[in-house]
Order: sequence, then structure tokens, then C-alpha cells
Amino acid sequence: MKASIAKARVVIENVRPVIDHGAFAVKRVPGEILEVKADIFGDGHDVVSAFLLFRKKGQKSWQQSIMHEIANDEWLGHFITGEPGEYEYAVSAWIDNILTWHHGFVKKADAGESLLVELQTGAGLLKKLAATCKDADKKYCLETAALFESAEHYNEAVAVVRSAQFEQMICSIPLRENESISQILPLVVERKKAVFSTWYEFFPRSASQDKKRSGTFKDCIALLPHVKGLGFDTLYFPPIHPIGVAHRKGKNNNTVSKPGEPGSPWAIGSHLGGHKSINPELGTEADFVELVQAASALGIDIAMDLAYQCSPDHPYVKEHPQWFKWRPDGTVQYAENPPKKYQDVLPIYFENEDWKNLWEELKSIVEYWIERGVTIFRVDNPHTKPFIFWEWLMSEMRKDHPEVIFLSEAFTRPKVMARLAKVGFQQSYSYFTWRQTGAELQKYVEELTNTELRDYFRANFWPNTPDILPYYLQNTGHSHSAIRFVLAATLASSYGMYAPVFELLVNEPMPGKEEYYNSEKYEVAHWDWKSHTPLRELISKVNAIRHEHSEFHTMHNVMFCKSDNENMLSYLKINANSDSGFLIVVNMDPVHRQSCWLQLPETFMNAHNGESLLLVDLLDKSHYNWNRQWNFVELDPRLVPAHIFRVKLNR
Amino acid sequence: MKASIAKARVVIENVRPVIDHGAFAVKRVPGEILEVKADIFGDGHDVVSAFLLFRKKGQKSWQQSIMHEIANDEWLGHFITGEPGEYEYAVSAWIDNILTWHHGFVKKADAGESLLVELQTGAGLLKKLAATCKDADKKYCLETAALFESAEHYNEAVAVVRSAQFEQMICSIPLRENESISQILPLVVERKKAVFSTWYEFFPRSASQDKKRSGTFKDCIALLPHVKGLGFDTLYFPPIHPIGVAHRKGKNNNTVSKPGEPGSPWAIGSHLGGHKSINPELGTEADFVELVQAASALGIDIAMDLAYQCSPDHPYVKEHPQWFKWRPDGTVQYAENPPKKYQDVLPIYFENEDWKNLWEELKSIVEYWIERGVTIFRVDNPHTKPFIFWEWLMSEMRKDHPEVIFLSEAFTRPKVMARLAKVGFQQSYSYFTWRQTGAELQKYVEELTNTELRDYFRANFWPNTPDILPYYLQNTGHSHSAIRFVLAATLASSYGMYAPVFELLVNEPMPGKEEYYNSEKYEVAHWDWKSHTPLRELISKVNAIRHEHSEFHTMHNVMFCKSDNENMLSYLKINANSDSGFLIVVNMDPVHRQSCWLQLPETFMNAHNGESLLLVDLLDKSHYNWNRQWNFVELDPRLVPAHIFRVKLNR
Repeated sequence: MKASIAKARVVIENVRPVIDHGAFAVKRVPGEILEVKADIFGDGHDVVSAFLLFRKKGQKSWQQSIMHEIANDEWLGHFITGEPGEYEYAVSAWIDNILTWHHGFVKKADAGESLLVELQTGAGLLKKLAATCKDADKKYCLETAALFESAEHYNEAVAVVRSAQFEQMICSIPLRENESISQILPLVVERKKAVFSTWYEFFPRSASQDKKRSGTFKDCIALLPHVKGLGFDTLYFPPIHPIGVAHRKGKNNNTVSKPGEPGSPWAIGSHLGGHKSINPELGTEADFVELVQAASALGIDIAMDLAYQCSPDHPYVKEHPQWFKWRPDGTVQYAENPPKKYQDVLPIYFENEDWKNLWEELKSIVEYWIERGVTIFRVDNPHTKPFIFWEWLMSEMRKDHPEVIFLSEAFTRPKVMARLAKVGFQQSYSYFTWRQTGAELQKYVEELTNTELRDYFRANFWPNTPDILPYYLQNTGHSHSAIRFVLAATLASSYGMYAPVFELLVNEPMPGKEEYYNSEKYEVAHWDWKSHTPLRELISKVNAIRHEHSEFHTMHNVMFCKSDNENMLSYLKINANSDSGFLIVVNMDPVHRQSCWLQLPETFMNAHNGESLLLVDLLDKSHYNWNRQWNFVELDPRLVPAHIFRVKLNR
Repeated sequence: MKASIAKARVVIENVRPVIDHGAFAVKRVPGEILEVKADIFGDGHDVVSAFLLFRKKGQKSWQQSIMHEIANDEWLGHFITGEPGEYEYAVSAWIDNILTWHHGFVKKADAGESLLVELQTGAGLLKKLAATCKDADKKYCLETAALFESAEHYNEAVAVVRSAQFEQMICSIPLRENESISQILPLVVERKKAVFSTWYEFFPRSASQDKKRSGTFKDCIALLPHVKGLGFDTLYFPPIHPIGVAHRKGKNNNTVSKPGEPGSPWAIGSHLGGHKSINPELGTEADFVELVQAASALGIDIAMDLAYQCSPDHPYVKEHPQWFKWRPDGTVQYAENPPKKYQDVLPIYFENEDWKNLWEELKSIVEYWIERGVTIFRVDNPHTKPFIFWEWLMSEMRKDHPEVIFLSEAFTRPKVMARLAKVGFQQSYSYFTWRQTGAELQKYVEELTNTELRDYFRANFWPNTPDILPYYLQNTGHSHSAIRFVLAATLASSYGMYAPVFELLVNEPMPGKEEYYNSEKYEVAHWDWKSHTPLRELISKVNAIRHEHSEFHTMHNVMFCKSDNENMLSYLKINANSDSGFLIVVNMDPVHRQSCWLQLPETFMNAHNGESLLLVDLLDKSHYNWNRQWNFVELDPRLVPAHIFRVKLNR
């Protein structure tokens, strides 16, 4: 055993946040606070000091901030995260011999005991401390030590020990001997958009405003002002690659297609190319790059679909047959994601002997599009590909392309979804789509924000997707969609919608299924992109509020309020150290006017010390003054199903 | 990356029990069950199989037992622990290609699809499996593969796949390809006494039945039948080494002693020797060894006090001055454990440069007494010595002396006590001494048995010690002590008492303190060892019940019952898979008769399906028949404050 270990008398346990014992990184974006807690204690009764250490990965020296004991040997420290990149943090603690001596000195002084020996001991410690510091500090230590040693200055020396200046010095320049250091834990800081993003999804082939032809990237460029006008910052397209011919799907998921049917964009690859090619019906690669740049000029990122799977016509099938699992009859079993069957898609066989080349090729697809300006990928069914592959891909990306965001499209079991987030997906589709009542939503949001998920799982709330038309929305009018929209947009800092069907209230289902009838997955559609509708107006208003107010740029600040009507869901969003914030109240009943008494949380009211609150509804500009804990609210879903109150102290 | 990692598609997370990420060993005794849980899942929809692996440390090959999914990707496995020693366990899991194929086969067969290709695939898998097994299994695999491949036996082949024999075979001889293995976690199996022990403490110098002289080891030998008669299996003595003269304490902790006063046994060391010597007033080393052997013959272990500290006269002070922390005036600060001051004791300075020799010497003390037959040590104030030293000492002991038990005498903050248990102390003093109400006790016992403490912290319940006469017992009669005794002896599998003051109801305190007046720590006493008293009778009865019934040999089986009177604490102790057990009811009020309706837990009643229960109180032999969930009980503390019911199904 090394002396440095044998002499380290402080125990550091249970450093947190920590994900799987440190196997995976805690996630933050720039300017967020990382609060670190640890259990720290020494043997005996000596005084312990502790620092939180942090550094960019690869650096040798640490930055540090002091930690304080909360209670019962639990300590807290924090730092504010910097620019995107990989970081590390740890806790350092030691028996502070000077503070221990100072503590004993003061006790003896109070008891009127002689302090001669104590002054001698203090002089020795100060000389040790002097050896660790420079300039003015060193001088102060040495002069003070000399004072302690000179018998004729006894009273002066005692007064110095008891001075505030001296105490401040020994706290700020600690004597770190026999230091204990905890396990070093990983942190990744990602761009702000990893937390705050507003997604809009449509099929480029449905972008044409000319009903006689299907849409192209040029049509998409023409729609960018529409997207911008609604307030979205991320425009996501289903795959834009050549579509296979073999087993092409027909209208409404028919396993047989008629000539001229366009097929599912997820059946990627044909004689025209694979994942690095563009479906010529949409345009050229140059058109696509032009679109990416035009969007970027408006502050919109184009998000690309990353679906690692192949149509039977994909060039890989001939060029790399070893990447597929062939059956004794020379066929490959088509892909499934029960209960869905993808007869037009072959899965990749990840356990093949040529896996290294396969992984590199899959990575090169991402890099290909990064080079063309794409930095956001929505990953199709990642839970049907090995976790270890994603872990590798994400770590490669963190090193070379820290700006890239991957959204995990895994609607599956909780631990599987969580694992994908742990291995590095920056965002994840969520159960929001199926959380309908206020109680369900509160429970789910509290799970996302108050459990360990908080540190690595960033939920993206979607009321609908091309794959999912939830029963709740089927064959309904404005208020159902408005409720789901407001909930997604105000509960989560990232949300998205499959459009324009959502805003146009197009919601006829396949009977008995949570799927769209005449789904755009299998056919081209033409939409009214221009009409002003109440839902479009609500979407632009709420997105503008989200954009303007930082309370909506995190999900971690949601605090639910009690109400006496389960149909009325209400929650505060208040940032730390702020004396204003938001109160959102949603009538969950799409049919009836509902009212409730709702309670502002005691902590919140206490913080405001009974002062009266000014509430301004940013949707209808109405004003209210509240000065009690319980307050009355009423909402008619046929008008607007929610209040979005800006709450301020009425000073 | 290795192919074995890249191809392993199963994730194993959150293997538990686990202590501090595997830094410390989970503890068991022989024959206990280690239940291991883990979160296990693969990508996609293939069938996963998992084994729990375990082995003695140092062995290469694993034993294994199959794990089963409970729900939601959480799996469970278990094994029964063997002889004392160091063990390891881990979880192994893999995508089971044969089970996956079988699952698909049955689905297709049910759907009436052609199975020709499936049979070919199955034949290939069986040939792979054949390569991993021998003899009859190998033959069966190869013959079955041949059958699958022969087109003319199609129907027979299909029937084989669907047969129970085939399914059993592919479950019991799994095809383990691309296996994932979790972190390997440590387990230590210790002798049964680490969990089940009954302690009796007295001062050997008070063992004399001749009032004219102080006690010796020979007097202790004469008292062994008394100890045995009361039912104790562990006899613990305060230190038996020479006592220092400098700063010797007088009666009632006086900092000045009169000539002839014996001093505190914890002021170890004089010109007569140190920790490897015997106080000549007690006898010789040969006398001590004779005592150890005589006790052993009666099934009693002698437990020795291990107090790593020195009187100023200890030989170490002159021989190894570097092991003490000298102040500028040439003195050493005496030991403290606030608020207690030990003016007659010097602490050891563990951070000294000669720490290696110090550690070896301290270890040699333990080994010295192990060689003389001692295998149990009660360690004095371990929390005032470095945790890293204990961690090292305990690991040395686990290797060379796995039979040795250390009891941690740390009455301090929870995390400090827990850390000592983690680093290896087999038993720990506990907060029982200050948990007085039924609600307090239930909460504490549930913390010990239902949290992670369960796996490493073995509480020893003491109603009193030479250092602690709790307020509850001060100046009280029989029923107070009887209540505390019954609680300690039936809630905990290890408990102890400082005697014979406890059984003789000697409980006069130092006014205002939780300390004994005329404490034996500072003087010699003479006691009545012979009278039969109600408390002595109760102690022997309860210890006999504890000894006879395995329900009392663990603390983990305590299950509290609801009652409508907070003064009536009731709890079941039932071992897993047993249809009988114990119900203990204690009247916590030492003064008044109390009664209650108590509820047997629903799980317990359900398990017994409404059958009637026979209850026999092993204290007074009374019989009861219960067939309802709620039942009436009454107890008079002046008679006996508890029922100890043996509960059996009345079949």
C-alpha cells in the first residue's frame, strides 16, 4: 500500500450524480449547474474540508470549488458548466489540521486555558502552509508563525488567531495533507439545443403546393417561412434516400404496391443508391444542401432520419452480403418491430464476422451528412440494433462532432429506452404520447425530472408521429389537439409534431389501430399550408413564449400544484434564484368548461412571504392579482384550454 | 474493441446486492440464500437467457444457476452459500438463438406456415449446440439435426420441435453465444456466529465470590456454569492487560486515584507489558488459556477487548515514540471521544511515517491472541482510528483467519458506523440502546433489514454497556429491564448485556448522565452470582428458545404486525418456506397492563388460506387458537411483559 493511501483518513462515498457506477456520463448544456453531493467523513473528531474538482477531459489540473456539509455527513458542491465537450468531476477531501487546531485553540481560549503550547503548534502548521503558497500568502504565514513563536507577543498572537482575517485565510488557503480523492466521474456538456428544441416533421414529397406533382426540396425551401412562422427551430424529414422496389409497400401498408406508388421512405436503397444518396424525385444533393443552408439562415436545423436498414435492392445487399443473415433457402427474414411487420425492409446482421467494416460504414453515413451540414439525426428504432454499437458510435461522435444531436426513436420498455439515453443519445422519444390524464402526466414528468433519469434522459414530447395517431386524437376537433399541444410545449423543453396533419386536425385512423388512414408513409399527400386556423395561431403564440422565456428551456423546473379538480392540471416553471416564473393551467377535459381551486406550493408562497402576485396570461393578456395560497381558475376548452400565466411579485 | 464485446448484444445492469459499486463484500453465513437481481435485456425481440455465476475466490470456473425474469426486464437468481471464505458472483446473459428460433417456429406452426426453412435453420443450430456438449446430449443434438434435415420426416420433425422433451433440452443445455458478463462482485461467507450470538459481559476482576479479594481468571472459570446456565455463548471481558499508573483514574472517573485503586482496564500498558501481556492481578497467560479452553468446552467463546490505545506507561511509548503525536512541549494530547475525556489514555498517531511497522504490530496483537484460542474481538472505538487501517486489517484476517469475528464498538453517526461494517467488521453495536418506543424500534429494525444495510451491517443489540446506562433503565425495577431484554433477544439475532448488573437490576446513575454510579470501569465490585431472580429465569428461558429455534438465528425475517395500541409491539419471525414460526408481542409500557387487537399480515394469512393457527406461548405454555386476521392480546408487565408464541398451522 502506498503511504498516500494509508494516510488518507477521509472517506468519500456515494458521489452523485452518477450513472451506472460512472460507466456513463451525466449530461448538461452550457450554463447549467452541476450540483454534486457526496458522503464525506473522517475517523475521530478532526475537522474535514472538501473540494469539488472538475476539468475538461484530457487536462491534468483541476478547477475546484469548496463543498459544504448539509447535514449528517452529506456534503454539497456545484459548478456551472462551460462550453460543449467532455468533462470529469471528482471530490477531494482531507483532515484539515489547521482548522482542527484552530477549533481546539478557540475552545481552550474560551475555557481560559494556557495557549502557549497551542501557539507553538500553530506556528509549525503555518510554516507547513507557507511551503505550499506564494507571495503575500507565504509572507503572511511566515510572519504570523514568527509572531506565534515569540513569547513576548502572547496576547497579540492570541488575538490574531481569533481574528476574522486569520480564519478567512486558513479557510481559503487550506492545508491539504493526506488528501482522499473519489472516483473520477464523466460529464458531457452538449449544445443547448440538446435540451431546448422545437420539432416539426413533414414528408418532403408532400410539400408540393401543386397538386399535380409530388414535393421536392425546392418546395420545402418555399415552406420554410411557414415553419419559421409557427416558431419551430428543427425541421425533421423521414428518409430522403432512394426507395427500394422489391416488396415495395402500397397505400395503407398494402404488401403489394401498384405501379407508380412511391413506397415507404424507410425502405432505403435501390439501384440509385443507399444511405448516402438522395431520392431523385426529391431533387439532387445540391438541392438538399441548399435547403439545409436556407433553413439555417432562418435559425432552423434540418434533422435527418437515420434508419440503419435496407430495402432488398440496397447496394449493400450485393456488395456486403455478409452484413445480412441469410437463411438456408437464400433469403433474409424481413424486419419486424412487433406488432409491425416491414416486408420491404431487411435488418442488418450485427453479429457478422465483418462487424468492424460494417460499423465503420454506418459511422461514415453520419459523417457524410455532417459534411453536408446536418447536425441533428432522428434515429429510427435504435432499440433493434445492439447497444454496444450505439455506445461506440456516440463516443466517436462526442470526440469528433460534439455539436451533433441524436434523437432516439425507441417506443419500448423503460429500461431499454433508458439504456439508449445512457449510451449517449441526446434526446429520446417518450411515453408522453400515451400519458393522457393529469395524474398520469404528473407522475411521468416527476419520474423524468426527480429520478436519476434527470441526469441522462432528455424526453422529447410528441402528441403524434407518422407511426402513431393515439386513440385520444382520433376523429377529434380543435380542443383535443390544442390540449395535447399545450401540454407537450409547456411541460417539455423539447417537443415535436408530425405535421401538417396535426395542425390541420387530420386524424382519421385505420379502424381499431393507432395508425393514420391513408398514411403518408405509403403515399404522397397535398396539404393546405396557408390557412390561418386557431390551432396554428395557438402554436405560433406558444412557440414564441417558449422562445422568449428561459423558464421553458429546461424541463427540470416543473413543480406541480394541487388542485381540487382532477381535470385541471397546473404547474409552475420557475428557474432557480428567480423571483418570477410561469404558472400553466390546462383543462384536460376537451369537452366541458372546468374550474378549480389550485394551491400554489408552500415553498413558493413562503419564498414570497405573503406578497401579492401579478399574473398575466400571455395567451389572452388577461391580468390577475393573487395573494392567497388557494386560487380559483376556470377554462373553457372550446375557446382556449389553457392559461400560460407569467407570474411576478407585485412590487 | 474485441469481437467478444462487439457481438455481445445483452445488457446487464444494476446487479444487486452490491455495496459501493462492488468495493466491499456482501456478507452471508453458511446456508443462507443469496438472492441476486439484475436488469437484463437485449436489443430487438430475440429471447434472452441468463445465469447467475458464483465461485470461491481464486477459482477459475464458475458454478451457475438459472435466472428468471420477474417483470419489466428485472431478473432473479439465487444460490445457497457454502462454507466460510471469500466468494465472487456475477451474471451472465446472452441472446439464446435456439430459444429465439423455437419461439418463431411455434408461431409459424400455429399460423400454419411452411416450416421447411425453419427446420433447416434448426438443424444448423443443433449442430452448433452439439459441438458444445458431450455423450448423450451430443448424440441427441446430432440425431435431431439429421431428422430436421431429412425432408421425408417433416411431420415427425415438427412434432419433435413441439415436444416437451425438446423444449426441456434446449432450456437446460443452452447455446451460449456472444455472452455478456456483468461486473464480478465480492461475497464473504463467515461463520454462523457472525449472525447468531448471545453475549455476556463482565469484569473479570469483579468475578471473585470472596469479598476480600478481587477476581481472577480462576474465578471466571468458576462462573462459566452460571454463564452457560443463563444460555450465553459469548463471554466478553474488558481489557485484561496491565493497567497504567500515570494519570490512573480513581473511583467514579476521578482524574486522581488513591493508592490501591485498580484504574480503568482501557488504560492499557505499564512496566509489566502492553497488549500482549496479562494483568498479573487476573492471573497468568496460562490461566487465561485455561479459561478459554474451559469456556470452549461449554460452547462458550471468550471475546477479547481490542483497544488500540496506550497508557502513558505502555512500553510502546518508549520503544516507538514515533507512533505518538508529540506536542512542542514534549507531551501527547490525551484521547477524547466527546464528551468523554480519557486523561489516562494516549491515542496512537496513525499518520506517522513508520505506519507500516505500526500496522504490522497492531495486527500481531490480534494474531497473538488468536494463537491462544481467541476468535472474537470487541473493538473499542474503531471510529477513532483510520478506516483504511481497518480495511487492511480485516482483509488480512479474511485471508488468514476467516473464523475471526470483530464487533465494532462505534456509537456514532450512521454513515461512520456503516463504513466500519462495510470494511469488514462482522458485527456492530447499534442504536437499539436508545430506541425506546415501538414505533422507533420498528423503524430502526426495518432500516436494518430492508435497506442495503441488510447485506453488510449486522447489528448487535445491547440494552446496556459499562459505558451506557440509558435513562430508560435508571433506578427501575424488573419490568423495565425485562422489556429491554426481550426486545433485544427476539428482535436481533445477536444481542448482549453488561452483567451481572443488568440481571441484578443495579442501575443507579451518575446524576444527569447515562453512566453508572460506582462504575466497575474504575473499581472492583463483588456480586451475587447465585440467587435465582425472575429476570435470570426469563433470560435462561428466552436464550433456550433462541438456541433451539432457527427463526431467531437471523434478523432478516422480522415482519411487524399492525396493532391498535402503540404500547403493544408485535412481530412475526418466520423463515422462508416454513409453515410455522414465531409471533412475539411485547407490552412496551413497564407500568400498566395493556391490551390490543393486532393484525396478522395479509401475506401471511393468505399463505395460510384461512386455516386456523395454533399459538403456544413458550414462556408460560398457554395455548390459543386464532382463525381471524385481527386478534386480541393482553399483557401485564408486572408478571411477564411479552408473549413468545410458537405459531403453527392447526392441521
